[in-house]
Amino acid sequence: MEIKVLKDILSANEQIAERNRQLLDSKGVFAVNLMSSPGAGKTSLILETIRKLKGKIRVGVIEGDVSSSVDAEKVGKEGVPVLQINTGGTCHLDANMLLSALSNMPLQDIELLIIENVGNLICPASFALGEHKRVLISSIPEGDDKPFKYPLMFDIADAVLINKIDLLPYLKFDIRGFSQAVRGINEKVEIFQISCATSHGIQEWVSWLLTQMSRR
Amino acid sequence: MEIKVLKDILSANEQIAERNRQLLDSKGVFAVNLMSSPGAGKTSLILETIRKLKGKIRVGVIEGDVSSSVDAEKVGKEGVPVLQINTGGTCHLDANMLLSALSNMPLQDIELLIIENVGNLICPASFALGEHKRVLISSIPEGDDKPFKYPLMFDIADAVLINKIDLLPYLKFDIRGFSQAVRGINEKVEIFQISCATSHGIQEWVSWLLTQMSRR
Repeated sequence: MEIKVLKDILSANEQIAERNRQLLDSKGVFAVNLMSSPGAGKTSLILETIRKLKGKIRVGVIEGDVSSSVDAEKVGKEGVPVLQINTGGTCHLDANMLLSALSNMPLQDIELLIIENVGNLICPASFALGEHKRVLISSIPEGDDKPFKYPLMFDIADAVLINKIDLLPYLKFDIRGFSQAVRGINEKVEIFQISCATSHGIQEWVSWLLTQMSRR
Repeated sequence: MEIKVLKDILSANEQIAERNRQLLDSKGVFAVNLMSSPGAGKTSLILETIRKLKGKIRVGVIEGDVSSSVDAEKVGKEGVPVLQINTGGTCHLDANMLLSALSNMPLQDIELLIIENVGNLICPASFALGEHKRVLISSIPEGDDKPFKYPLMFDIADAVLINKIDLLPYLKFDIRGFSQAVRGINEKVEIFQISCATSHGIQEWVSWLLTQMSRR
């Protein structure tokens, strides 16, 4: 019975996600669902991306967290439209939360909408939001075994960004083994090595993003 | 309605957790529920703790993961009883999973049972297992804002271990501000600074653990 209830919830979520996608398309907004463990660097990547795209692409941000608005405050300082969703206790955003948020965003002023999901490698993977691309950040300090432990998240990702690459001298992380494990789950995924601390790889990530937007 | 269903689930879980606690007490087993984000160092702490207690306290380990048995394999090399629970897609262990696992553990040979929960800062906080103490690892690379974002997890913890303290020279992390935020949520919590890479603080953690076991 528990599984049936879950299937109903997921199916209802898919329908709302489809509505969100139609709304975004009608306004010419490209949406990215950004996911990772807590502290892997989602907000830092958003800040780096906004700075790289300044004067080129109009960015908006929706921040998802169980509690607090610390991320929205950081992003707000960049002068872009930003909205914080607090989920209460829920471990992921869902399509209905995004639907409510979209009605409070100035979509006509946005070309790229980055949605920062709740920090979690499990629950967000099951809930489509209506996004065009799903991006997963995995960071060096988390270790290279994450694809084995959280396979669904790696399976649904369009791109995996290996962040905090500047910490490689101080930690054990087998980039090649990690990449092979990721491709074993999801052979089409793009993998980038980045550091939001040094800006390493940010240009490549942004170029990929712009290509995806132009192909839509 | 969703909330009612959730309350029923949590209440049923509490009842099974109480049964687990009675079973553990009848066998003289002290149980610790170890929680953290993915990759914060739960398995590394278990390995360090087993090594420190070798010849003093008989340890057993239950490993919880969505998928894979990589952690159980690492722990098994230490020669202690270990069992892996794979939750499928579920984002936390629950009391019923632990009940099944306990019937497959040689409890008469164990004085300290460490239960490694699924890597997640949200869901595990809502599900008691029947443990005697709840221990949370928060690691330096995750950043010092986690108490604001995941307050429930910090609220229910008996001890918070700040791990990867050896990475402090390379990362921004305000230990004092973090500790104040944690104590703002949970004034009785014990806070330790540790590094599983250098063994810094492991003696203090193990001493605290032994004191808790002796007070039971």
